Amino acid sequence: MENHATSMYMPTAKAKHEHPSLVTKRSVKFTKKEDHPTVTINGLKEGIDQPDCPPANDHDLHKATTFVKDAKAGRNFKFKLDKVSLDFYDTYNRWYFVYLLYFFLFVIMALALFEDPAITNLELPIWTTMTIEFVCLCYFLFRLAHSKRCMSGIFWMGDIKNWIVLSVSVITLIDMVVYVILINRGKPWIRLVRILRPLFMMNFKETKDLRQAFRNIRRSLLGILSVLVLLFLVIGLFALLAREIFEDDVLLKPDASNYMSDYFENFWDLYVLVTTANSPDIMMPAYDASPWYMLFYIIYVILCIYIFMSIFLAVIYKDYRKHLKNEVQKSVFVKRRNLVYAWDLLKVWRGGAFVMPWQRWHALMKSVEPSKSILQLKLIWKVLDKDEDNNIDKRAFMKTADILNVKIIEKSRYVPIWEKHFPRVYNSAVSQIIVKGIKHKFFGWFFDLLIILNAGLIAFRISSIEWFFLTIFSLEIVFKLYALGFYRYFTNPWDVFDFTVIVLAVILSIAAKAAKDSNTLEQRSLDIILVLRVLRLVRIFNNFEKFQVIMKTLRNIGPSIFSFGGVILVIYYVYAIIGMELFAGKITYYGYPSEETAEIFNKSLLYCGNPKLNGTEFYRDHYCNNNFNNVAKAYITLFELTIVNQWHVITSGFVAVTSKAARLYFLCFHITLVIIIINIFIAFILEVFMVEYSLSKSSFESEIEKKIEELGLRAKFENNNFTDRTNLTPHMEVEDGPAGLSNEDLDLAKFQLGKSSNSVQSILQNMFEGELDEEDIGPTDIEDLDLLDPDQTDSAPFPFTLDNVV
Amino acid sequence: MENHATSMYMPTAKAKHEHPSLVTKRSVKFTKKEDHPTVTINGLKEGIDQPDCPPANDHDLHKATTFVKDAKAGRNFKFKLDKVSLDFYDTYNRWYFVYLLYFFLFVIMALALFEDPAITNLELPIWTTMTIEFVCLCYFLFRLAHSKRCMSGIFWMGDIKNWIVLSVSVITLIDMVVYVILINRGKPWIRLVRILRPLFMMNFKETKDLRQAFRNIRRSLLGILSVLVLLFLVIGLFALLAREIFEDDVLLKPDASNYMSDYFENFWDLYVLVTTANSPDIMMPAYDASPWYMLFYIIYVILCIYIFMSIFLAVIYKDYRKHLKNEVQKSVFVKRRNLVYAWDLLKVWRGGAFVMPWQRWHALMKSVEPSKSILQLKLIWKVLDKDEDNNIDKRAFMKTADILNVKIIEKSRYVPIWEKHFPRVYNSAVSQIIVKGIKHKFFGWFFDLLIILNAGLIAFRISSIEWFFLTIFSLEIVFKLYALGFYRYFTNPWDVFDFTVIVLAVILSIAAKAAKDSNTLEQRSLDIILVLRVLRLVRIFNNFEKFQVIMKTLRNIGPSIFSFGGVILVIYYVYAIIGMELFAGKITYYGYPSEETAEIFNKSLLYCGNPKLNGTEFYRDHYCNNNFNNVAKAYITLFELTIVNQWHVITSGFVAVTSKAARLYFLCFHITLVIIIINIFIAFILEVFMVEYSLSKSSFESEIEKKIEELGLRAKFENNNFTDRTNLTPHMEVEDGPAGLSNEDLDLAKFQLGKSSNSVQSILQNMFEGELDEEDIGPTDIEDLDLLDPDQTDSAPFPFTLDNVV
Repeated sequence: MENHATSMYMPTAKAKHEHPSLVTKRSVKFTKKEDHPTVTINGLKEGIDQPDCPPANDHDLHKATTFVKDAKAGRNFKFKLDKVSLDFYDTYNRWYFVYLLYFFLFVIMALALFEDPAITNLELPIWTTMTIEFVCLCYFLFRLAHSKRCMSGIFWMGDIKNWIVLSVSVITLIDMVVYVILINRGKPWIRLVRILRPLFMMNFKETKDLRQAFRNIRRSLLGILSVLVLLFLVIGLFALLAREIFEDDVLLKPDASNYMSDYFENFWDLYVLVTTANSPDIMMPAYDASPWYMLFYIIYVILCIYIFMSIFLAVIYKDYRKHLKNEVQKSVFVKRRNLVYAWDLLKVWRGGAFVMPWQRWHALMKSVEPSKSILQLKLIWKVLDKDEDNNIDKRAFMKTADILNVKIIEKSRYVPIWEKHFPRVYNSAVSQIIVKGIKHKFFGWFFDLLIILNAGLIAFRISSIEWFFLTIFSLEIVFKLYALGFYRYFTNPWDVFDFTVIVLAVILSIAAKAAKDSNTLEQRSLDIILVLRVLRLVRIFNNFEKFQVIMKTLRNIGPSIFSFGGVILVIYYVYAIIGMELFAGKITYYGYPSEETAEIFNKSLLYCGNPKLNGTEFYRDHYCNNNFNNVAKAYITLFELTIVNQWHVITSGFVAVTSKAARLYFLCFHITLVIIIINIFIAFILEVFMVEYSLSKSSFESEIEKKIEELGLRAKFENNNFTDRTNLTPHMEVEDGPAGLSNEDLDLAKFQLGKSSNSVQSILQNMFEGELDEEDIGPTDIEDLDLLDPDQTDSAPFPFTLDNVV
Repeated sequence: MENHATSMYMPTAKAKHEHPSLVTKRSVKFTKKEDHPTVTINGLKEGIDQPDCPPANDHDLHKATTFVKDAKAGRNFKFKLDKVSLDFYDTYNRWYFVYLLYFFLFVIMALALFEDPAITNLELPIWTTMTIEFVCLCYFLFRLAHSKRCMSGIFWMGDIKNWIVLSVSVITLIDMVVYVILINRGKPWIRLVRILRPLFMMNFKETKDLRQAFRNIRRSLLGILSVLVLLFLVIGLFALLAREIFEDDVLLKPDASNYMSDYFENFWDLYVLVTTANSPDIMMPAYDASPWYMLFYIIYVILCIYIFMSIFLAVIYKDYRKHLKNEVQKSVFVKRRNLVYAWDLLKVWRGGAFVMPWQRWHALMKSVEPSKSILQLKLIWKVLDKDEDNNIDKRAFMKTADILNVKIIEKSRYVPIWEKHFPRVYNSAVSQIIVKGIKHKFFGWFFDLLIILNAGLIAFRISSIEWFFLTIFSLEIVFKLYALGFYRYFTNPWDVFDFTVIVLAVILSIAAKAAKDSNTLEQRSLDIILVLRVLRLVRIFNNFEKFQVIMKTLRNIGPSIFSFGGVILVIYYVYAIIGMELFAGKITYYGYPSEETAEIFNKSLLYCGNPKLNGTEFYRDHYCNNNFNNVAKAYITLFELTIVNQWHVITSGFVAVTSKAARLYFLCFHITLVIIIINIFIAFILEVFMVEYSLSKSSFESEIEKKIEELGLRAKFENNNFTDRTNLTPHMEVEDGPAGLSNEDLDLAKFQLGKSSNSVQSILQNMFEGELDEEDIGPTDIEDLDLLDPDQTDSAPFPFTLDNVV
């Protein structure tokens, strides 16, 4: 029987297109739809029913498990199919190896903090940083070798990412050797190679999200480019116009320099005006000379700021959305392909079609997700097996990966600890009245009111009554703990927040009282804790539906924003390294002596250590701390440049201590980060928000929920936060279990949907779910599979259309 | 026969729902689909064919004409149907009456320029402005009376817009009287009633676009409100946090004031930070004290600037789009209703269905569009009459209004004037070679190159060779005029631009040469003309496809942006009037004496006439001209506030000369204009741009174009600008004309689509065309028609769903 299962698998292996490791020379005939009843594959008649399903052979199960795991994690890896390679691949995907990779990626990026120029007090000797870097590189190379062992040679060779990691490692090693040699000879060497480090972050299989985000940005660039060129052309024209218009009046700026007399200065000033940073200063001299001159600026501002910038956003929005959709479709495709492989390995011919019986599916799932209980698996099976014949078809099987990603929480009947240990006291009439009172909405409202009152008093600094509030909020915690028990209290994040804040406040207050001469740090923590309590106000607003939607959206787009943050941090990193090489040590903050104290000030520290800054706006505005003396400072400076305002002043400071060429650095940064990345970020939020705002649950979640509802398995007490106090008492009516889930099972557990993993990928797939045809059950055609060569799928633009898939 | 046509009309008048003026007491039975073959209306059998169509009676034709005209112009006016009222209504819609209204609206708005505080040298005596205002009011009231005459009383009374115009007129009149009395007694009187003037602009039938835009904004407000409240809550919390965190360090700002020590100051500073205007200044004292403090600002900035502001945009985009769609659907509905009325008046029973024969349609069109030639009408008929049976059905008729709005240009074969008068010379071999050379693409490229060269020389101020360029560009004009002839040269906007610039440059250069001691004004005009020539560079970029799309989009969204500009101007107006009442005369620009010249400066004029400004950043930055001393200055100040940058400095100036309460004015302005209106503007551009970017032609345009192509009537020489030089020679093959368009007709003319009227309405209808069901041919149900009461359709939210319509 096991033999049969294997022979079933072999004929459907469509030559090399089925899987890279299955490359055989046999020519195989097949029709497109393998679930067609009269299909004849490779001369072998498959139309024989198999009512008693044979267990799948171990090796096939292992392969299928690996395919489903890859589908679930969204991996696209062409591993070899022999047993040893599969075992290697399992090890390759072990969580500790993966987390070790993340750790070393973090370490190599964080090294910049300790390398010269290091953050004060964090300097490490060269040998230390070098050793750490070397360890990181070793792990990266080991990881590379490991992946090489699991993958067939051709595919590994064909993947450009591996070569990038390899070559960056080699370049870094060479650079390290050169650096060490030169340092020993006393010659300085710029370690600009450090800007290559982010390439490690982007070129491992595990950092797919980041790579994808970068690829999207890169592809959106083309669309922006023409608008950008047009914008520069317009600025160039206006710069010329400005010179011709204003020159003859010989106007002066407030700092007595000539106004709009030099073409390249005009260009720079007008570019800064597009960012609004020098408005209205740049206009005032002209305006003072004649109000009509304002017409020039009004036309310019409307054209360049409002119209061009909106068009930028529009073009980016449109392009980015298109590329995003392409990416998502591609990864859906990869997922489905993995599932098709798994399906082909385990499917059984039954009742005129290929199906997957419960036995095989269950064996597969046990091996994919050992942590899922049989109950959960049965629930999932119920969702998939719509006609309840204990078989699922290919279409249902294709949903497996997504449905496994929905978190289902099993809830046993929970009883407060008090009831468990002192049932008589807890269930007495008085106690029950108290519990009911605590659970009543007025109890919540009363404390909401107290929070508002407390917040008001804090704002107006009336602190004499503070002890009263502390006491009463502590009492609230005790009451709630009594009514809800520990488990339910501490699983509600708001209650945990309350608890932390109040307990901390009590401890700190007592400590401060005990110490008498209150330590400033202690006092300040107390102050902050005080204010954090005000944050509880947000909870009151949470009662209004409109706010709930916004809060929920904010919570859900959180992870996506973080992944986008990764992109920004990488770009910051590159600019920070370059910035440090260019500007480190030129400007240092030593304080700003007033005219009187300047006399006794160390002369070499005057004007932030650089006399060239004397009299500049940069120094006058006290911007000296915005420098590139170490990575942290560089990041903060770049952050301020990202906010845009006064960026031209920061630029002017560095121009003063170097040359006008420094503007190029700041201009490039502005274009990459503000004009391109921030616009893409806004486009991204716009898109994600619009989807989230309307779409509250993925279709899988709602499908499972419906099923849970249908089976009467919903844990009714799930809303145990105080915003929904009416439903607090646990209802535990056990309804008759349907076939497949026995009554004993039902006694054991109720289900509830947990917070689904709102990974970027799942949100993105939500975004384009409506546009993806559910009927596309994966590639069945040779031409399509050809498109899945590793070098194509991951780097080249993928001509993905629905027509290609079906 | 005429009698019959009337009787046809009467039975289908579905009681009061057919048209307000047709209110009768008869109970009328009818089925929903009146084009059902077996329909019997009011006991009268309609199933009798009328192969020979009787001409419609004059009154019906008049009514139908008025309905179609209203549909075409998008008017929603419940005029009375008797002959006299119709005549009155015709007069009411005469272009001079409408333009007179626009004129007086402009005048009453422009009055603010001349009223106290007036623009210098533009002051008019009170009696003059009063008289002008009175004349405006009289015309408004006349217009109101006129509309009352055309409309039945109930509907006029039910329209709130009429009452607004009436009451604002009365209030203004009372205010004028009070003002005159008080002025004569020497008492001042604030004419704040002027802020009501924009209400005139928004409450006439003719200013529908503006009213619609305002209504959309008003409705989008609700969605924004909750985000705004949340934003303010977050700012409030951070203000509290800032106080607790920074207070104990006793930090100082560069101006030696306390840092973050007062709650309301913190709130203001943090609000300003949301607008980025005081970044990074507000952060620097904390940063200088400890780098860790920056964490506070980084969290705040990411949360409030990037996330909140993006969500603002997202919420606004979503809401605005929804309301816009609603509005557009409503106006489509009104249009279709008018067309249904017209249809019912003129339809004829033929071949089992109601149809409109060519004779009646032609009569109607002749009366609606007397300017359209019979040829054009025939072409349109060809488009509508798909089955070529000389009848159109209701669905085709419903397209009439839209198709009339597409401009079709009739082109006769054009011959250059030279060829006409000197055919022998012009057609000689040499001449033809020259013409061919001029039309060759290298000719164009050569001059493109010269333009680039010239632009470079202008930028680098090498002017000695200028005469050479002037001569050669003049020659280019002569050559082109020879090859293309006057008509085709002067119908290409780029050529006209070239011509104007070059001819002006030649004239001014000669004048400057002649005068020897070149007048500055002359010199400057010459300089500007010089630069304008550089604008021709844009034309070169026009050769690239990507730019063409952007340029085309820019050109097409132009009108929509203008209509949006109207909204902004109205809001500016209201704020300008309030600003003048609050701040006029407080700050005046008298120049900024340096320390030396301050001695001899008139003391009362020091510090912009207000000693309170001494030492403020406002004065230091030379912002004194940003004041509210007259409407023009107020507009410019508000414009600068719209750009946002340094708005807090401008605010601080007015706070210095009044009180901190002045912040409220600037805060309100910022919220209304920047946060709400500008975001809506961006949302609008985003939407319009996205539609325009993909959608190049409305479906009607392409339908007509297809028809023109099909009939072989395209004028082939339409692309006579030099970007498409290959197709320049006019092809005039006359193909056989189809039935309905005789060959003589074809000899006469070729058609070409003109620039379609890209009114806001048509772009908007494009936007939602995909979502509007073409099958909705107007209301046929009693319930739907009830929704069309004037007080409902135009003011209350309209529960418009497609289900309602069908």
